[in-house]
Amino acid sequence: MTRTVIESQTKTVTIGFDEPFCVIGERINPTGRKKLAAELEMDDFTTVEKDALEQVACGAMVLDINSGAVFTNKMAEDPRYADNNFVEPDLMKALIEKVQSIVDVPLCIDSSVPGALEAGLKASNGRPLLNSVTGEEERLELVLPLVKKYNVPVVAISNDDTGISEDPEVRFAVAKKIVERAADFGIPAHDIVVDPLVMPIGAMATAGQQVFTLVRRLRDELGVNTTCGASNISFGLPHRHGINAAFLPMAIGAGMTSAIMNPIRKVEMEAIKAANFLMNHDANGSEWIQFSRVLDAVEEGATFPDAAKAAQGGGRSRSGRRRRA
Amino acid sequence: MTRTVIESQTKTVTIGFDEPFCVIGERINPTGRKKLAAELEMDDFTTVEKDALEQVACGAMVLDINSGAVFTNKMAEDPRYADNNFVEPDLMKALIEKVQSIVDVPLCIDSSVPGALEAGLKASNGRPLLNSVTGEEERLELVLPLVKKYNVPVVAISNDDTGISEDPEVRFAVAKKIVERAADFGIPAHDIVVDPLVMPIGAMATAGQQVFTLVRRLRDELGVNTTCGASNISFGLPHRHGINAAFLPMAIGAGMTSAIMNPIRKVEMEAIKAANFLMNHDANGSEWIQFSRVLDAVEEGATFPDAAKAAQGGGRSRSGRRRRA
Repeated sequence: MTRTVIESQTKTVTIGFDEPFCVIGERINPTGRKKLAAELEMDDFTTVEKDALEQVACGAMVLDINSGAVFTNKMAEDPRYADNNFVEPDLMKALIEKVQSIVDVPLCIDSSVPGALEAGLKASNGRPLLNSVTGEEERLELVLPLVKKYNVPVVAISNDDTGISEDPEVRFAVAKKIVERAADFGIPAHDIVVDPLVMPIGAMATAGQQVFTLVRRLRDELGVNTTCGASNISFGLPHRHGINAAFLPMAIGAGMTSAIMNPIRKVEMEAIKAANFLMNHDANGSEWIQFSRVLDAVEEGATFPDAAKAAQGGGRSRSGRRRRA
Repeated sequence: MTRTVIESQTKTVTIGFDEPFCVIGERINPTGRKKLAAELEMDDFTTVEKDALEQVACGAMVLDINSGAVFTNKMAEDPRYADNNFVEPDLMKALIEKVQSIVDVPLCIDSSVPGALEAGLKASNGRPLLNSVTGEEERLELVLPLVKKYNVPVVAISNDDTGISEDPEVRFAVAKKIVERAADFGIPAHDIVVDPLVMPIGAMATAGQQVFTLVRRLRDELGVNTTCGASNISFGLPHRHGINAAFLPMAIGAGMTSAIMNPIRKVEMEAIKAANFLMNHDANGSEWIQFSRVLDAVEEGATFPDAAKAAQGGGRSRSGRRRRA
């Protein structure tokens, strides 16, 4: 059985065909979040702290840490800040140290900058997931040595120097190439988590079926775990959370074993908890029963993050208590 | 491609691997609905009328008509009413005539009484679906001749004289036996819609995976369409609509092509509409876009049936207009 093991200082998360779906929280990412980027530029980690606690309370098992910030003000004063190779390594280290001081879940180190990936690998406790390698030659040669050196698993995205193919056969071939290249470095297939790339269903009618078919093939033919940016599927559509909440169970049924996603949304997390139960990855339904208490609280008017935090009990339900005061 | 064709007087519904999921509305069924049974006993079809209109507005493509009523008062006066063979044929005829006078969708004639099945076949316009045959010898010999005589498709439930097996291999074998026996009568596989039997996940942890595996096998090996009593999966569990709403997309992804279910529930219908889109059975997402307007109205406070009726426009939105008055 394919098992991808990720670790924090004390916790182990296993991504696998016979494991509950692994939710990787995507929120700690300054790309497109101006308020977060502005805070980080001032060494303010308030939002990062909130996002870390909320995502874990809501059910994230791993937190993605993306350091892709643009520091506009600093850039105006010091041109070195225009270069992400300069900005991201220090920021990645700071983000990881902050998050590790608050929550004890494994991390996913997410950057397009190799220096930030290595800074993240050095700063992380345990065995983080590296995000990501692609089929691009330069990227393969830069990232796979890091994967080997630090003995960590890696997300492999199915695009290459020709871009993202709309042909699922090509995306499968790219994934296969990455797995084979990794093997040349001595990296086993169970340490590769393939992202077959999810296209928006609004733009490509076959996008859903492509993913379901690819996930089955990746699992059956390459023996790898899979992940995706789940919300891409519903890009641009009305009531997109309804699309996401059907897509996730269908992907799980097809064999998808993780997703990088926003765990703060009740409807998607409910779909995943139910899918785990239906896949026989929730013994006696105990996770569902526990989650149903959070759903009860939401029905009574609580926000999902507050209800989730309150359900964790004790020390972490601060905002829950404030609401009741 | 396997296509099961069902017809009303003017409408055709095709159950098939390349068709939108066929929602068969289950509500016109006096079993366990005391108020409905009491009404029917007094020749009062108010609830039947409401159920027919609401189910169609909410997205039912076929209406199940079950005549399994117990007429307690009449029974006290006339002992013949204790026998369903006496009660159901006339009731089935009356139900079908009433429903056909209100809505023009194909019907599913549902009874354990052979006389009621034949009365339903005689009363129905078009090409109804017969519900059901099982692997029980007596049932096979009673129902398959009707299927052949009236040239209609039939629901085949995977239990036999030994009962309902918990072993999915046995349930597959029963389905195969029914398909083979039907072939002996000259009934083609595309006119058999197999119900592989959905067990409650709360009682049997493998219930979900059993269904997904069975549906794939029934499709690949027997080439038949499938149906199920979808809500069985969540029997006895809290927040069961969340379980149903994950189960339906997963079953659809596995190849399930219809379900006998309550279409009055927004969460399940939203899951099915999204799954159709994700299976590329909703060209340009036009059904989803249309449905999203119903979801908008529900967010603004309308009930799902009222919002669905209003979205149909014009003459059928009576209760919607009453709400606004």
